[in-house]
Amino acid sequence: MTAIAISAPGGPEVLQPTVRPVPQPGPGEVLIRVAAAGVNRPDVLQRMGFYPPPTGASDLPGLEIAGVIAAVGPGGDPELLGQSVCALVAGGGYAEYCTAPVGSCLPVPVGFSMAEAAALPETVFTVWHNLFERAYVGEGETVLVHGGTSGIGTTAIGLCKLFGIKVIVTCGSADKCAAATALGADLAVDYSSADYVEAVKAFTGGRGVEVVLDMVGGDYMPRNIECLADDGRHVTIAFQRGAKVEVDISQVMRRRLTLTGSTLRARSNEFKALLADEIHRTLWPRLADGAWKPAMDQSFPLAEAAAAHTRMEAGAHVGKIVLMVGWAEGTHVMFGGSGTGGQSRG
Amino acid sequence: MTAIAISAPGGPEVLQPTVRPVPQPGPGEVLIRVAAAGVNRPDVLQRMGFYPPPTGASDLPGLEIAGVIAAVGPGGDPELLGQSVCALVAGGGYAEYCTAPVGSCLPVPVGFSMAEAAALPETVFTVWHNLFERAYVGEGETVLVHGGTSGIGTTAIGLCKLFGIKVIVTCGSADKCAAATALGADLAVDYSSADYVEAVKAFTGGRGVEVVLDMVGGDYMPRNIECLADDGRHVTIAFQRGAKVEVDISQVMRRRLTLTGSTLRARSNEFKALLADEIHRTLWPRLADGAWKPAMDQSFPLAEAAAAHTRMEAGAHVGKIVLMVGWAEGTHVMFGGSGTGGQSRG
Repeated sequence: MTAIAISAPGGPEVLQPTVRPVPQPGPGEVLIRVAAAGVNRPDVLQRMGFYPPPTGASDLPGLEIAGVIAAVGPGGDPELLGQSVCALVAGGGYAEYCTAPVGSCLPVPVGFSMAEAAALPETVFTVWHNLFERAYVGEGETVLVHGGTSGIGTTAIGLCKLFGIKVIVTCGSADKCAAATALGADLAVDYSSADYVEAVKAFTGGRGVEVVLDMVGGDYMPRNIECLADDGRHVTIAFQRGAKVEVDISQVMRRRLTLTGSTLRARSNEFKALLADEIHRTLWPRLADGAWKPAMDQSFPLAEAAAAHTRMEAGAHVGKIVLMVGWAEGTHVMFGGSGTGGQSRG
Repeated sequence: MTAIAISAPGGPEVLQPTVRPVPQPGPGEVLIRVAAAGVNRPDVLQRMGFYPPPTGASDLPGLEIAGVIAAVGPGGDPELLGQSVCALVAGGGYAEYCTAPVGSCLPVPVGFSMAEAAALPETVFTVWHNLFERAYVGEGETVLVHGGTSGIGTTAIGLCKLFGIKVIVTCGSADKCAAATALGADLAVDYSSADYVEAVKAFTGGRGVEVVLDMVGGDYMPRNIECLADDGRHVTIAFQRGAKVEVDISQVMRRRLTLTGSTLRARSNEFKALLADEIHRTLWPRLADGAWKPAMDQSFPLAEAAAAHTRMEAGAHVGKIVLMVGWAEGTHVMFGGSGTGGQSRG
């Protein structure tokens, strides 16, 4: 099969098409003929050599896919064959075939293209676990998310709006703020021209937000803490501006804050299956109703993975970037611009 | 009535006997004729001017008392009169009379002296809330507590042993380590001669502890974080070595740590009543069975509050220091040394 390998740590150009054997599904796994694979920030870090795959995972990049089940592992249910699924994988998504634990697969939602389905697992699982299970955000509360037009940001906006949660995002330009607002953000703060702490305080009547979902870290951390209301929760999912942060623990005590975080990739298959099951029961029925689709930015043929990474790193994208495998959709595509139901025109 | 006031911020000598009007209980309050008042570290900070009483609280120090209900507020239940209770108060405990919300009162446990009962509320409420409700520690888990012979430390040891939790403490000398071990600590690390991080790792087979209960902060924080196992919880209740701490959020993410904390004094009466109710239902029956008594250090007459503070600041005490009001017990007393059931001999 054709796959995209990281020939050496480096820039986008190190992503090179290569020929690999089709992987064999083990017990509890299925083999998916990949139609589309989502591109995520951790793929960029892995390409640079900063985020090695966990033990036992493929060395190929790619954390989410959609496609058709082409084989089942020993003892697997043959009825799975031919089903259209999307899946969270620990690596190996940038390929024509990829194995996945059965428990990490979800059906392609009714009305979703393969590209849209491939854009779901990584950000939906990440946002779901961190917002609902770690920060236990509830209806009527307010969340602050940085990077409002990123895959995480646009997914957070979508899920918050579905479940009655107010969402404030930060973005780096007025255009991106407009895009985030169009996607449903209650407030989008242009951090290039405004202090987001002041904007959050003003929007919440001085109270602050109940939850911050943060992928920035570094010098944002003390400012994020300023944004939190009493009993607020801060969840770290990345640290683009550094992992060493300063915290005023007198604030943590006096306002009873909770600082936590998680990574998804290294979790057990059992954990991911439980999470997938909860998402399937709770979110999937809403997707079938058309209540939300991921914001889609652009698709690239699998062979042009380097161009997809260049686009992500340029930072001009809004929503998800995906790679398409030839059998499904071969051409270079810009998705619909609304983002609220962007559709592949490939 | 006689009370101990803080004449000006400063050393122990600023604690001076003074005459004040007996306070009047408001709706939902009772007036307690104080027999004994516990001395706590926050009292020292308040005396120094670093910990002002919350709005509406007495300016007199003292966060916990035991005594007899002498009056009830408007609409209160007259059957309360004459009952022996201990109570958590937001201030005013260093006095012959003190008001308390009814919901913050608990009966003096069967078999407890007034001194022992006065030694319960502040540390029991604090340890209970932070270990069980914020860090949700469970049977079979291991807790690290600094200051193993302090009021908090000795209470944490006692409650952990009652509920099947392993407890590691740090202390500043071999003698204190021996005292902590005698009280039930599974491991006591002398921080003056050993690295507690290494000791914790060795004791837990490299895994780390599920919970750290910390009153140190500062440069201890990164070391505490090293001590935490995956999914570990760090609860801050004071910051004797500074509030500005450095945190490696990549560790928080990768090991799914939770950093939180709280203060008790400023919480609402409703919260304290809920907490008191839970403690009454869960812990009090065990106290009546004689399963645990607080470790008692020394008692002083109320008028000698300055000497009590001097003793606390000298740091040689093991367990609780209490002040005794004349009608109950007037003499300078050293409690029994075992600490596992120390008794007043006044």
